[in-house]
Amino acid sequence: MEDTLSAFSLTTLGTMGIVSLIAATTNAFNGALLARRPDHYKHFTVIGVILLGYAGGIGGGVIRDILVNKVPSPLVNPWYLVFCFVAAGLAVVLDYNSTQRFKDGVFQFMTAFTLPWYAIVGAQTAVDTKLGYFAAVIIGVLATTGGRFIIDVACNVIPKQLVRGEYWVLTAAMTAGLYLFLADGLGWSQVIATAVAFVFGFGFRLLAQYFGWEEWEPWEPAPSKAGEKTRETLGTGLKDEFDPTGGGAKV
Amino acid sequence: MEDTLSAFSLTTLGTMGIVSLIAATTNAFNGALLARRPDHYKHFTVIGVILLGYAGGIGGGVIRDILVNKVPSPLVNPWYLVFCFVAAGLAVVLDYNSTQRFKDGVFQFMTAFTLPWYAIVGAQTAVDTKLGYFAAVIIGVLATTGGRFIIDVACNVIPKQLVRGEYWVLTAAMTAGLYLFLADGLGWSQVIATAVAFVFGFGFRLLAQYFGWEEWEPWEPAPSKAGEKTRETLGTGLKDEFDPTGGGAKV
Amino acid sequence: MEDTLSAFSLTTLGTMGIVSLIAATTNAFNGALLARRPDHYKHFTVIGVILLGYAGGIGGGVIRDILVNKVPSPLVNPWYLVFCFVAAGLAVVLDYNSTQRFKDGVFQFMTAFTLPWYAIVGAQTAVDTKLGYFAAVIIGVLATTGGRFIIDVACNVIPKQLVRGEYWVLTAAMTAGLYLFLADGLGWSQVIATAVAFVFGFGFRLLAQYFGWEEWEPWEPAPSKAGEKTRETLGTGLKDEFDPTGGGAKV
Repeated sequence: MEDTLSAFSLTTLGTMGIVSLIAATTNAFNGALLARRPDHYKHFTVIGVILLGYAGGIGGGVIRDILVNKVPSPLVNPWYLVFCFVAAGLAVVLDYNSTQRFKDGVFQFMTAFTLPWYAIVGAQTAVDTKLGYFAAVIIGVLATTGGRFIIDVACNVIPKQLVRGEYWVLTAAMTAGLYLFLADGLGWSQVIATAVAFVFGFGFRLLAQYFGWEEWEPWEPAPSKAGEKTRETLGTGLKDEFDPTGGGAKV
Repeated sequence: MEDTLSAFSLTTLGTMGIVSLIAATTNAFNGALLARRPDHYKHFTVIGVILLGYAGGIGGGVIRDILVNKVPSPLVNPWYLVFCFVAAGLAVVLDYNSTQRFKDGVFQFMTAFTLPWYAIVGAQTAVDTKLGYFAAVIIGVLATTGGRFIIDVACNVIPKQLVRGEYWVLTAAMTAGLYLFLADGLGWSQVIATAVAFVFGFGFRLLAQYFGWEEWEPWEPAPSKAGEKTRETLGTGLKDEFDPTGGGAKV
Repeated sequence: MEDTLSAFSLTTLGTMGIVSLIAATTNAFNGALLARRPDHYKHFTVIGVILLGYAGGIGGGVIRDILVNKVPSPLVNPWYLVFCFVAAGLAVVLDYNSTQRFKDGVFQFMTAFTLPWYAIVGAQTAVDTKLGYFAAVIIGVLATTGGRFIIDVACNVIPKQLVRGEYWVLTAAMTAGLYLFLADGLGWSQVIATAVAFVFGFGFRLLAQYFGWEEWEPWEPAPSKAGEKTRETLGTGLKDEFDPTGGGAKV
């Protein structure tokens, strides 16, 4: 077997490879913990929890690399799969030995800690692919939040991106933007830019969690008489609309 | 920063680029409107509505380009992201200022108007990738309906592709097929073929909506004693099947 | 029209192409049958059932090829689309003419029969892309189970990967691993290695179904006072944690 793309070597990863590996490992831990949380739990087997750990761990990285048209690095470098497996296993052990309150605290802290990594490496990957800054921020957000999207959809929960979540998506976007400004705009080294962007993203997220900052949720939509199931045909609708006698009364 | 792939230029888009941009923008408008419709609304934040607008707007184009193994053009050309943002914002403003009845009418009209664009550009993209006509129609359908699939799944609604929807999928397939026949079969110019296919797709969809044409929904399946949770093992099942005394009585 | 990538030719498929075609066709049959099963049925139209057949049939192959950065072979070779259509149609006919009990039996047998094919071709595809054994097993599992994931999510059912399912995921992983050991480790021919891995995977799955072997489902998580909606802010949580007087009483 030739094995030119993959190798059990950590030294060839480079800064972004190491950041990506941290992102995957910590997100796998979170993913497995989330799978066992009562609002997500749906009688998952141990294999199911591990799979959801993988979804959380490498999901964002796989989405990122598919978008920039590369073979996903979590499949190229086997350490991703090993580290994610260990992290998901650790989460199961922690889940067994802790109170729900402690686990909720660990989970909140870890979601803050894990957030910046994928945002940074996603943004850098987009720049490496010669994409613009807008796309780089979008890819940073998708890499950061894509794994959680897969978990939420699989667990039949409304994805956290779309509901109140202490500026989760915005923090990812700002972290990616800050990194781009420092590394690509000001020309700082990747290591320094990563460190500053990490401290910002982690800190902002912790503050948002501490003070309970939430995204704005607009007014409730009025209940509709017409869902897609029960709606009238366009024909009936138009007839009502232009009929001065009977149509208006129905509204 | 080098920026060879992306540029804020609309003149280099070409016919298919402009059609794709129209598709993305109008679909983003629809997506945001849909996110606020009572049957889809799940306490989304403003960021959530914008994200669902993006999902509807660039989702189909991203799926199309991933399938033909390219970096998705909505990430390469920043105008997609700008136009989709504006369109989603407009939908939120319209949502605030209109009755549900008016919004339902706008939404129905807009789903007819938006349908042909992605079908056409999806089919052309497949032909450019040297794929066959079958694959071109499939990619046209996936590009047209993929964004809505993401929105429906995220909103925990059964995807519209699968249920009655006034020949939505079929109209997309026929529009893609007609475009292919005109542009690739008869050799018409892309502009003319696009215009004719658009008029056909838009018109057919409006007619289907006006007259309430619906796909055929087969007979209801009989209620089963055996869901996957409560089913017997294959062993028990086979024993019953071949046991002439007791097995039949259980059915 | 040039058509260099696609051709209506079965002779150029090669061993893995034929195995992939068997996988797609049998999975499309299963997918359509599943769409009509009471626990998945959600008032799908005939077009919806065919689309879910396609999702089950080519979904795994498309995911596999996207992960190794190729244009998906089910889009390149038109026979996939023809065979899947026929298989899904056959399933609808069978559905009409059979009792639920018979259909459940056919479905169970067919899920065992279909399981090994995508596992084998997924693993071989990964090796062809110079990915490692770990990634090859993962891609084998994703190719085998990815189509069902799409169907389950679309039908609003918890994906079968995550819940008890007679070692479905494990059987796919073991089949992929065995094939890799034989074909890539021992250097057996693809045909022989495929035959042996198929017999193993099919047999193990039938045994698991017959005897009702199931994955281990861990202890139920304790009900939590804090879902993500109602949780306290991190600030309140920490204050409670460090406040010796009042905090504990709230738990």
